[in-house]
Amino acid sequence: MASMLGAFVTDFFTYETTKSVVVKSWSVGIVNRIIQLLIIIYFVGYVFLYEKAYQQNDTGVESSVMTKVKGFGYQDNQVQDTADYVYPPQGAGVFCIITKVIVTDNQTRGLCEEPSLDCANHTDCEAFYGNNLVNGAVTGRCHKNFNASEGKCEIRGWCPTEKKSFPREPMVDVNNFTIFIKNSIRFPMFDVTRGNFPQHMTSKEIKSCSYHPVRSPLCPIFRVGDILNSTGQDVHTLATMGGEIGINIAWRCDLDWDEEHCRPQYSFTRLDAPFSHNSVSKGYNFRFARYYKKEDGLDYRTLFKAHAIRFDIMVTGNAGKFSTVPTLINTVAALTSIGLGTVLCDIILLNFMKGADQYKAKKFEEVSEAQIEASITQSQGSQLSLKQETKTLCDSGAVSLSNDLLP
Amino acid sequence: MASMLGAFVTDFFTYETTKSVVVKSWSVGIVNRIIQLLIIIYFVGYVFLYEKAYQQNDTGVESSVMTKVKGFGYQDNQVQDTADYVYPPQGAGVFCIITKVIVTDNQTRGLCEEPSLDCANHTDCEAFYGNNLVNGAVTGRCHKNFNASEGKCEIRGWCPTEKKSFPREPMVDVNNFTIFIKNSIRFPMFDVTRGNFPQHMTSKEIKSCSYHPVRSPLCPIFRVGDILNSTGQDVHTLATMGGEIGINIAWRCDLDWDEEHCRPQYSFTRLDAPFSHNSVSKGYNFRFARYYKKEDGLDYRTLFKAHAIRFDIMVTGNAGKFSTVPTLINTVAALTSIGLGTVLCDIILLNFMKGADQYKAKKFEEVSEAQIEASITQSQGSQLSLKQETKTLCDSGAVSLSNDLLP
Amino acid sequence: MASMLGAFVTDFFTYETTKSVVVKSWSVGIVNRIIQLLIIIYFVGYVFLYEKAYQQNDTGVESSVMTKVKGFGYQDNQVQDTADYVYPPQGAGVFCIITKVIVTDNQTRGLCEEPSLDCANHTDCEAFYGNNLVNGAVTGRCHKNFNASEGKCEIRGWCPTEKKSFPREPMVDVNNFTIFIKNSIRFPMFDVTRGNFPQHMTSKEIKSCSYHPVRSPLCPIFRVGDILNSTGQDVHTLATMGGEIGINIAWRCDLDWDEEHCRPQYSFTRLDAPFSHNSVSKGYNFRFARYYKKEDGLDYRTLFKAHAIRFDIMVTGNAGKFSTVPTLINTVAALTSIGLGTVLCDIILLNFMKGADQYKAKKFEEVSEAQIEASITQSQGSQLSLKQETKTLCDSGAVSLSNDLLP
Repeated sequence: MASMLGAFVTDFFTYETTKSVVVKSWSVGIVNRIIQLLIIIYFVGYVFLYEKAYQQNDTGVESSVMTKVKGFGYQDNQVQDTADYVYPPQGAGVFCIITKVIVTDNQTRGLCEEPSLDCANHTDCEAFYGNNLVNGAVTGRCHKNFNASEGKCEIRGWCPTEKKSFPREPMVDVNNFTIFIKNSIRFPMFDVTRGNFPQHMTSKEIKSCSYHPVRSPLCPIFRVGDILNSTGQDVHTLATMGGEIGINIAWRCDLDWDEEHCRPQYSFTRLDAPFSHNSVSKGYNFRFARYYKKEDGLDYRTLFKAHAIRFDIMVTGNAGKFSTVPTLINTVAALTSIGLGTVLCDIILLNFMKGADQYKAKKFEEVSEAQIEASITQSQGSQLSLKQETKTLCDSGAVSLSNDLLP
Repeated sequence: MASMLGAFVTDFFTYETTKSVVVKSWSVGIVNRIIQLLIIIYFVGYVFLYEKAYQQNDTGVESSVMTKVKGFGYQDNQVQDTADYVYPPQGAGVFCIITKVIVTDNQTRGLCEEPSLDCANHTDCEAFYGNNLVNGAVTGRCHKNFNASEGKCEIRGWCPTEKKSFPREPMVDVNNFTIFIKNSIRFPMFDVTRGNFPQHMTSKEIKSCSYHPVRSPLCPIFRVGDILNSTGQDVHTLATMGGEIGINIAWRCDLDWDEEHCRPQYSFTRLDAPFSHNSVSKGYNFRFARYYKKEDGLDYRTLFKAHAIRFDIMVTGNAGKFSTVPTLINTVAALTSIGLGTVLCDIILLNFMKGADQYKAKKFEEVSEAQIEASITQSQGSQLSLKQETKTLCDSGAVSLSNDLLP
Repeated sequence: MASMLGAFVTDFFTYETTKSVVVKSWSVGIVNRIIQLLIIIYFVGYVFLYEKAYQQNDTGVESSVMTKVKGFGYQDNQVQDTADYVYPPQGAGVFCIITKVIVTDNQTRGLCEEPSLDCANHTDCEAFYGNNLVNGAVTGRCHKNFNASEGKCEIRGWCPTEKKSFPREPMVDVNNFTIFIKNSIRFPMFDVTRGNFPQHMTSKEIKSCSYHPVRSPLCPIFRVGDILNSTGQDVHTLATMGGEIGINIAWRCDLDWDEEHCRPQYSFTRLDAPFSHNSVSKGYNFRFARYYKKEDGLDYRTLFKAHAIRFDIMVTGNAGKFSTVPTLINTVAALTSIGLGTVLCDIILLNFMKGADQYKAKKFEEVSEAQIEASITQSQGSQLSLKQETKTLCDSGAVSLSNDLLP
């Protein structure tokens, strides 16, 4: 019993390693080492240095954006300030600067004529029941002046109906507006928080600077004109039709360096670019109303159709820091991969080299069921025949030298 | 010196490959090839064709959503248009359609009775200090009519207090409203931008179509009734209580094909579904106020408690394109994995096959410390004993045929 | 032909396994097994149990957040309710509680003096053209009283200009406000939806509870004071300057357990913390206006400069569920990795063990181009020399025992 356990322990603490054939051949040797070199270069250069595989990464950045727009523009000779043209006003990461408005004053609820629906009689108008593209709910009645053959369908809604859009100058002063962006981020995995401008910046510096990708890449004040230029947009067209501009703040941080090197990179795109060639629905506009009350309690409103430039600030982040687990995993992967050169070298060695058959014979040792069965019979027959058996095996090894072992 | 370097170089440019045993046995051979076939099928079918492991992926889609709601509904026999019932109005990816409002007119700041707080004396009311669930700040005084035993606590706030909710018809016309969704996306890694409807669509086509998953999957106009139907919601309940509907736009793009095949897929869910069985806090409502001024400057307001359907447009994207690095890595992984069949085959061969011991002897070559020490002694004793040593080793190989090498 | 096919099939259904050397040595055996044990512990403990590599993960959580703020505060002895201090009002995941407002009443469009721009003559003012930091568009004229040497530049804008900020008590009552958060999520991959409070919670329970990380971690009512405390913020400073608070809802769900265990975890941070040490731009404020109309149609407005606490509710989710594909892949990875110990053991065995040269001789079988060429010549010369050839090879094996095979 004790000896069995001892034998088991002895058998257990053994070490098994593959038996290798070392081919002393310049041609295969050089190919082998070149492949290994390429694999090492790939891992050291690309995986470790370029992709930084020794780092743990955090892409789940928490971000907070505050914005403030400043500047004065004119619409219909009326001056507009921030509270007039920025919507919504709370300084979030998405906001609109209204650049053109069609104002319809003094609307009250009632019945009026829909300018776009012509009719000869009530039946014509009943066909428009449920039409969503007009200014109110179609009542099905046709309004005609006495003796006139053509009239307009009646609608129930806010009257008078919205003024037609007409050629009108947009507020191109938007070019000189400035946007102040305050962006703070946090990488929760490393508990690192960063702001988009340095702590030592004084109030005076911030008020006088203007973002420039080269000259002042950390200034948080952006001139709208500069943003539009860098997206290649024409301010007049954009202000007339409206549109959407994306401001991308990318934080790529290597936290193995000092945190001070963790800085934002800004880039600008026109987000609704895919629709720029469409025949319809160019630009961006929306409608809103301001509600008033007469002294007698009657509601009336002013309807605004606003063309606006919408700014959308998108923050992306990726921070990396040295960590043992990915380093270990990738080192092991690199070590194992170095052995992969053998796949290619084996193909060369066993097929295209002079003496390929001899190499095959060296690499492959053949054993067939017939041999095994023969040796079982022999060993059962006589324990003394061991020497003979060895000979048999040796012979088979020799015979296989002249055989193709792989199809 | 030069010869040492030469020897080193000769030794360096060698190629090392594993020595293999080829077992000519039908049973193990078939198992081996079947396992290899399964592995190849897995890699070719699942990894390469289904999961497209040869592609580089970009999931960080930049998206911009603009919406426009159209339609007319009735509340209290008053017609409501977009500017009345859509909040916020700027046509963003998240917006509410207000379907039922409780209006409390002409509120001014002052003192009044809180209907929900009964009292017999001031002490009763003092107990409610800091209560957040009433209509104003509790002052701690009890208002009673002359000789009455019961009264109501006084609050400081906007008076009169909010009207009680009462059975009231919601704006079920919402069913016929339409939502126009304009979604443009960009995959920054490949610099591909796409819009959710084709460029060649004319204004007339867009105005007359209506989204249908099969008949017109690219029409950007969605009937609210269709959306509610596909989420299985009843419009009357939803309009009465409010709720939140998610509109998912999924972009799954294989950019190895023409960009024109990169198209949006729409799906709809009720986002607040987990609360549908709760006894409390069903639906969705919020309060807002419109502020007015009397001629004498006094502020007054109209308070709205609005039940609304909130729409939340969520855009997800995943684009793939052929790239050499993932293709290489996965090809290498596939090649290495083909060798994994040996683990299972070895177990079969060395344990369950007839002649397993013989196979073990062929596969494993045993070397013990005792042998090594013996050979060291011999080789030190005489360089001429090489032949004898070989014999010893050959014997050991033969002897090991009848041993168990693995526990 | 048939025999060729038969030979091919026979050759095809073979099984190739590596030939191994089993070293019966305690020292290397123990090192080998310890390394294997460490690898197994790493895979079982870290990869499988801790990282749950047997699960498929879904991090693309769909989330919907509704909020409701309750409470009453005082500003300038005027009571404020939810409709007054919450902006935007629709109860979304991002909202502001306005804690301090500077009100400028009765502004109309016109010309007035800019208090911050001193001038002696018109030229002084012309220098300020396009200045965005004042209250209106600088006209370039200098307003001076008769005989005065100094005056103020004229601007065109909303007059009177905004009141200066002055020391003023913020609405510290915000401490007692409560935020009700209703968050429903969905993991689309597993089609699991969850709400942030249990279905069996009654209306009374919800109305009377208050979130506490230990005592009531599932109560959806949060006292603002508790939130500020847990982020270490002083309510008075925060209410005076404004700021941004992040409320993180993390859903980490192991769906192999009952869904009931899938519960939210709340955490709170001050998002604009990186700017707390800046000399400028502390806090958070924005401007908005309410527009009124005189009976004669003249527009006037009240301008508000609001300092506010912005709350940003961020939802993250990660759900895992058993899946066969990742389990298979990781099991295979584990099995292959167990073999990695050989790299280290080989280094020990072939370099630092007593008798390293003998082990090398056992592990490596050398074959040089010269031998191969010789054997080709022989086998071409006579098919009868097979026995001799075997001898040659045996000799070479013996000879290599005393050689260094690796540099």
